[in-house]
Amino acid sequence: MLSQTTEYALRVMVYLASRSGEPATIAQIAAATQTPEGYLAKVLRNLALAELVRSQRGLHGGSVLARSAKSISVLDVVQAVDPIQRITQCPLGIKSHAANLCPLHRRLDEAIGLVEKAFARSSIAELVPEQAGVEPFRDASVVSRRRKLKVLR
Amino acid sequence: MLSQTTEYALRVMVYLASRSGEPATIAQIAAATQTPEGYLAKVLRNLALAELVRSQRGLHGGSVLARSAKSISVLDVVQAVDPIQRITQCPLGIKSHAANLCPLHRRLDEAIGLVEKAFARSSIAELVPEQAGVEPFRDASVVSRRRKLKVLR
Repeated sequence: MLSQTTEYALRVMVYLASRSGEPATIAQIAAATQTPEGYLAKVLRNLALAELVRSQRGLHGGSVLARSAKSISVLDVVQAVDPIQRITQCPLGIKSHAANLCPLHRRLDEAIGLVEKAFARSSIAELVPEQAGVEPFRDASVVSRRRKLKVLR
Repeated sequence: MLSQTTEYALRVMVYLASRSGEPATIAQIAAATQTPEGYLAKVLRNLALAELVRSQRGLHGGSVLARSAKSISVLDVVQAVDPIQRITQCPLGIKSHAANLCPLHRRLDEAIGLVEKAFARSSIAELVPEQAGVEPFRDASVVSRRRKLKVLR
């Protein structure tokens, strides 16, 4: 029901939100969100066009959220990469349904509207796991094992 | 958000419901629902497999609803042709998310659940236009013009 592009874009946004403003490189985002790099470049471009992400080249470059994760809704992200299509006109091109959808298309549009509303109500900030130091899309145990290895070194 | 297959299947069901038990041939259904015949055969097969439609060959053959349109929900139809996929396990295969989805996937699954519920509550009978003698997916004016022509002949 939701496209792979939508899924990737949301992972990217939640991951960037979890970094609290520290820029992330394409390679870091790809690894942390399990998104193919080629795909990711396109997703990041659309997120930047929608002014949700800011990317900077160079040595300390990378991508950050363009504004606070609290102020970005799931719907903002979805609309930036793969917009939800409401049924605003008759998909069959029936003239007498133009201003007034038939019951089927009215009902389908209502269902799409429910998703749109739910997404508008959810902020990216709400989707960042609360456990401190845990990356949103990595196994908690793996991360802590890595930390332990670092400490041992 | 909803697939073309879902859209076609729902049109077919609403059209059959509007015929109050009179069998419809593939050609009739294709014309009345603007569905390509090849596609339609596949959709009808899946609807028959789910026991929502009954088809009979022969001179007075055709397809009819297998039970009352009141007792068939939109969800029944969707599940027969292109099932809604709930997020029941972590799409990233993260072990620690297996039993307990991360906030992102929990929220996405909730949105999908809203659609599922809305579709379960809607019956096919509710989607048949109330105006008597009007085919659900045809221009009312065209139908009445055809009628007038018949009368003139």
